[in-house]
Amino acid sequence: MPDPSLLETFPTPTDAPFVIEHVAEEFTSVCPKTGHPDFGVVTLRYQPRAASDPASRGCIELKSLKLYYQSFRNEGIFYEAVTNRIRDDLVKTMNPAWLQVITDWRGRGGIRSTIRADHGPVPAQFQGR
Amino acid sequence: MPDPSLLETFPTPTDAPFVIEHVAEEFTSVCPKTGHPDFGVVTLRYQPRAASDPASRGCIELKSLKLYYQSFRNEGIFYEAVTNRIRDDLVKTMNPAWLQVITDWRGRGGIRSTIRADHGPVPAQFQGR
Amino acid sequence: MPDPSLLETFPTPTDAPFVIEHVAEEFTSVCPKTGHPDFGVVTLRYQPRAASDPASRGCIELKSLKLYYQSFRNEGIFYEAVTNRIRDDLVKTMNPAWLQVITDWRGRGGIRSTIRADHGPVPAQFQGR
Amino acid sequence: MPDPSLLETFPTPTDAPFVIEHVAEEFTSVCPKTGHPDFGVVTLRYQPRAASDPASRGCIELKSLKLYYQSFRNEGIFYEAVTNRIRDDLVKTMNPAWLQVITDWRGRGGIRSTIRADHGPVPAQFQGR
Amino acid sequence: MPDPSLLETFPTPTDAPFVIEHVAEEFTSVCPKTGHPDFGVVTLRYQPRAASDPASRGCIELKSLKLYYQSFRNEGIFYEAVTNRIRDDLVKTMNPAWLQVITDWRGRGGIRSTIRADHGPVPAQFQGR
Amino acid sequence: MPDPSLLETFPTPTDAPFVIEHVAEEFTSVCPKTGHPDFGVVTLRYQPRAASDPASRGCIELKSLKLYYQSFRNEGIFYEAVTNRIRDDLVKTMNPAWLQVITDWRGRGGIRSTIRADHGPVPAQFQGR
Amino acid sequence: MPDPSLLETFPTPTDAPFVIEHVAEEFTSVCPKTGHPDFGVVTLRYQPRAASDPASRGCIELKSLKLYYQSFRNEGIFYEAVTNRIRDDLVKTMNPAWLQVITDWRGRGGIRSTIRADHGPVPAQFQGR
Amino acid sequence: MPDPSLLETFPTPTDAPFVIEHVAEEFTSVCPKTGHPDFGVVTLRYQPRAASDPASRGCIELKSLKLYYQSFRNEGIFYEAVTNRIRDDLVKTMNPAWLQVITDWRGRGGIRSTIRADHGPVPAQFQGR
Amino acid sequence: MPDPSLLETFPTPTDAPFVIEHVAEEFTSVCPKTGHPDFGVVTLRYQPRAASDPASRGCIELKSLKLYYQSFRNEGIFYEAVTNRIRDDLVKTMNPAWLQVITDWRGRGGIRSTIRADHGPVPAQFQGR
Amino acid sequence: MPDPSLLETFPTPTDAPFVIEHVAEEFTSVCPKTGHPDFGVVTLRYQPRAASDPASRGCIELKSLKLYYQSFRNEGIFYEAVTNRIRDDLVKTMNPAWLQVITDWRGRGGIRSTIRADHGPVPAQFQGR
Repeated sequence: MPDPSLLETFPTPTDAPFVIEHVAEEFTSVCPKTGHPDFGVVTLRYQPRAASDPASRGCIELKSLKLYYQSFRNEGIFYEAVTNRIRDDLVKTMNPAWLQVITDWRGRGGIRSTIRADHGPVPAQFQGR
Repeated sequence: MPDPSLLETFPTPTDAPFVIEHVAEEFTSVCPKTGHPDFGVVTLRYQPRAASDPASRGCIELKSLKLYYQSFRNEGIFYEAVTNRIRDDLVKTMNPAWLQVITDWRGRGGIRSTIRADHGPVPAQFQGR
Repeated sequence: MPDPSLLETFPTPTDAPFVIEHVAEEFTSVCPKTGHPDFGVVTLRYQPRAASDPASRGCIELKSLKLYYQSFRNEGIFYEAVTNRIRDDLVKTMNPAWLQVITDWRGRGGIRSTIRADHGPVPAQFQGR
Repeated sequence: MPDPSLLETFPTPTDAPFVIEHVAEEFTSVCPKTGHPDFGVVTLRYQPRAASDPASRGCIELKSLKLYYQSFRNEGIFYEAVTNRIRDDLVKTMNPAWLQVITDWRGRGGIRSTIRADHGPVPAQFQGR
Repeated sequence: MPDPSLLETFPTPTDAPFVIEHVAEEFTSVCPKTGHPDFGVVTLRYQPRAASDPASRGCIELKSLKLYYQSFRNEGIFYEAVTNRIRDDLVKTMNPAWLQVITDWRGRGGIRSTIRADHGPVPAQFQGR
Repeated sequence: MPDPSLLETFPTPTDAPFVIEHVAEEFTSVCPKTGHPDFGVVTLRYQPRAASDPASRGCIELKSLKLYYQSFRNEGIFYEAVTNRIRDDLVKTMNPAWLQVITDWRGRGGIRSTIRADHGPVPAQFQGR
Repeated sequence: MPDPSLLETFPTPTDAPFVIEHVAEEFTSVCPKTGHPDFGVVTLRYQPRAASDPASRGCIELKSLKLYYQSFRNEGIFYEAVTNRIRDDLVKTMNPAWLQVITDWRGRGGIRSTIRADHGPVPAQFQGR
Repeated sequence: MPDPSLLETFPTPTDAPFVIEHVAEEFTSVCPKTGHPDFGVVTLRYQPRAASDPASRGCIELKSLKLYYQSFRNEGIFYEAVTNRIRDDLVKTMNPAWLQVITDWRGRGGIRSTIRADHGPVPAQFQGR
Repeated sequence: MPDPSLLETFPTPTDAPFVIEHVAEEFTSVCPKTGHPDFGVVTLRYQPRAASDPASRGCIELKSLKLYYQSFRNEGIFYEAVTNRIRDDLVKTMNPAWLQVITDWRGRGGIRSTIRADHGPVPAQFQGR
Repeated sequence: MPDPSLLETFPTPTDAPFVIEHVAEEFTSVCPKTGHPDFGVVTLRYQPRAASDPASRGCIELKSLKLYYQSFRNEGIFYEAVTNRIRDDLVKTMNPAWLQVITDWRGRGGIRSTIRADHGPVPAQFQGR
């Protein structure tokens, strides 16, 4: 089951603002209604707080992110809940300046779905993408 | 014929604002003028009201949306009317913060068409897409 | 229901061999098991018999082919049966030198399918395409 | 020659604002200088006035639009003039809230061209597309 | 674990030879060495024996194929073994005229892999695809 | 109307066999049944006879080919007849070792069509393309 | 060498504002450092002044633009200088409301380059494209 | 190891503002954790200061940029550090009006990453691209 | 430097013939003439000998293949030599029924290159791909 | 003017047969009729003779090939002559086992052209590509 304790961080290397994006193309969980697997792409974008900001809890370590995503593999959970859950777990872990999670799901019954969840002041150029 | 009673909802899981998009690639109805079938892609985007908002009537259930779309299969109805009808039925069902319906129709006589209908304050980044 | 009486032909214009291909991108029928609509692309390739061949029954008229395909719209019929049915109806109507029908179906449950059915000596270059 | 009398309209079905786009991929006219044919794609986008607005003259009927475009087939006329002419004829016919015509021309001498002409307050999200 | 007893068949509808292809884009199993999930696309092509051939055991039923593929979800198994296993299970179930299984695996460490396994006289046009 | 007298040739520059392909992406004629324009791509492939072969009548001059194609602009003529007509006119003009004409037509009523007509021993690698 | 005297104009046909874009895909000049040829795509966008504006010097004639671009063929000139030169020559010739020149250069040593130069109030929707 | 002394500049050719973009598709460095090579695309965008601005230190010379990028080849360095390092070295070298560095990394463990770092007032149209 | 001792194998799992393909998209070596890095894609296809064939030395282990490819990273070596070297090292290691190595190199000076080297009876369907 | 003396060779590194392909995407010459530049892609494929074959004159050196192609830059020469000329010059220089030259020309007047010229026993899998 989804396990946020897997998430690790490293200190952000600079005070200058910059933006990090990780696109995980091999996400899978299970539909709680039908028991069939769901497959999707999870995009994470965020700006870490400045290195000198005492509130900063750093950047997410890439391998730990991968293991955290894998912990959803056999979880029965809806699209909307996956997306909000990932946002909340990552916000708690990093306390970033802002953060955005987008999940793109392959079709079920001919309908493809995308869920977008933001935290904090996501810049205009990243909204709706 | 189009049957909005097929539409079902589930409670939105959070107070945090998020955006849901469903792209149905297999929509078909019938041209009322020629009797020939029309084929299109229907994109629905909306933001549900917050879970704690008493006006919220939740999120659309995916399978019920599919059955609702299938109810247009043998209906004679113009592009413009399909688009406005879907918008109105979904707004009534969910009472969302905002909602957008876009229909993309395969060509007839060498002309492809797209119809866009909005409800409420659709954010700038989703307009014109 | 599928109605081969809709099919019309016109005389092939020449004795020189040539090959005709029609790709119908908007085919739909109904799954007899689930009642859900199926969507596919139907490719027809054939070589009409020579104009001077008394066995020739000509080339398929394009609009009549479209109406024939539309007659499957509300028929409950499996992929394999659709493909063999179209092949048999067209062979009976045209008596061509050879003929090939390929149906490509959009995914159901994450599986896309293609069915290929031949009649007569289909040249090597068209097999497996 | 270009014949705006071919254009027909139908009443817009709603007071709610919505946007209609028709992309005609098979436009052809003749270069008045060389006599060679030009080939292009004509995109029309507009918002009809509300149904209850007495100034509304409705939406363009799709088949009449096709015939109107075909009336340029043997006309010797420059890219720029085609684009402005279509804009003006359609504005006169529909009196829309706003309207946009974009013509994309296949290359001549290795140069592809695009002409964009607007009428009224075209929303930002459609400008430059 | 992989469970061939999930596989069901239906009688092939005709004596005329035809070819069936199913492309499952959402296959996943687990690497037995690292424990990380593998993701791939499984293509199955085969020609059922003629309906009148007493050795025929029919065509694979599509939903049962999907469930059979899902039974690999948490199995630790190498690419090569997955491919040979699927071929062998399907050959035993259907006894087809010929059969072909191709697995395309998303990259691991920057290397994408494809495994092809045939049974019986696969026609030239399908080899190497 | 189609005018083969527009076609000009130039002497083939060598005895060594080579293959020439011209793809005209802007072909248009008129459907004799509906009066609506048809749009297509015409591919011509051929091998000229050797320079020293007294039967050689050379290679087609490119600008004359363009003008010949333009002469179909307002001709009411079916797909099949266009293809056979072009093949016959070019064979008469050049007397090539072999020649192939392929016409690809944009969709009418949701059906795209391709017609292939050969003359002489077209090599296997060009058949069915 | 680059020759702006080749540039010709024609009067803009209307007072209504519209935008013209010409994309020349076959531009070539020579690197002054290495003597090797450079290949690029030159995009020109501009809005001519209104026909009734006495400052208007019209629209660029397409064939003259092609000849002007060809005059760079054997000129040794850097990417940045080409771009600024074209902008300046065209601004002098047309005196447009605004103008934009973008050059996209094929890679040299694995690096592709794009240079953008503006004149006057280029609308936001064209900036950065 | 990364060597900014390799970077050379040339004087910007004009006072008119313009934007330069270099996309290096063959960047490689080494992961300091695993020792495996990383591969990415580095995009640099900047606006040089005006030629007459005494603070201007010009434009980056293309071949020197290539050699500078090659100096990362055997350096163990994280994605985030590469991106910030390149930004800082180039800002020091050129003192541009604004500058932007974007690194796109091929997947590791199924996750692709993009890092964006800005300096100075990057115009809105380049943000988030 | 290239180190074939890094290559490891595992026993082929079956006597049934099957084909394995590994596409490494991140190969890099160094041009011995200029010292600049080369970047390419290395495709390996082979058929292992049957499990019961005493001459079989099995299948290449994927991680060892990756490390072997990485050992070329700082080697000065021409395209042709890389390709022949990989073929020879892999043939010695596995003694396969047949084997094929294809290297696709990104452009240098505007020229992209592909080198193909075979060992043993490569089936027709894999030749020239 | 085309200068085959620019072509240099290096000894083929092995007796094992292998195939080399160089795709030059930036070829340009001049149309002798109109004086306008032509732009094309030149593909060269060949198999060098074995290293131990006394008739072998080796492989073409890549930079010399580039300079040879550049020597056509200001030559007035037809498509067909370019193709045959390159084939003949390269055959004389290398005396390969077989050789193939394919030129793909960007459109002139809406017609794209491809010329293919072979020398010696070009394997079937490379013919017609």
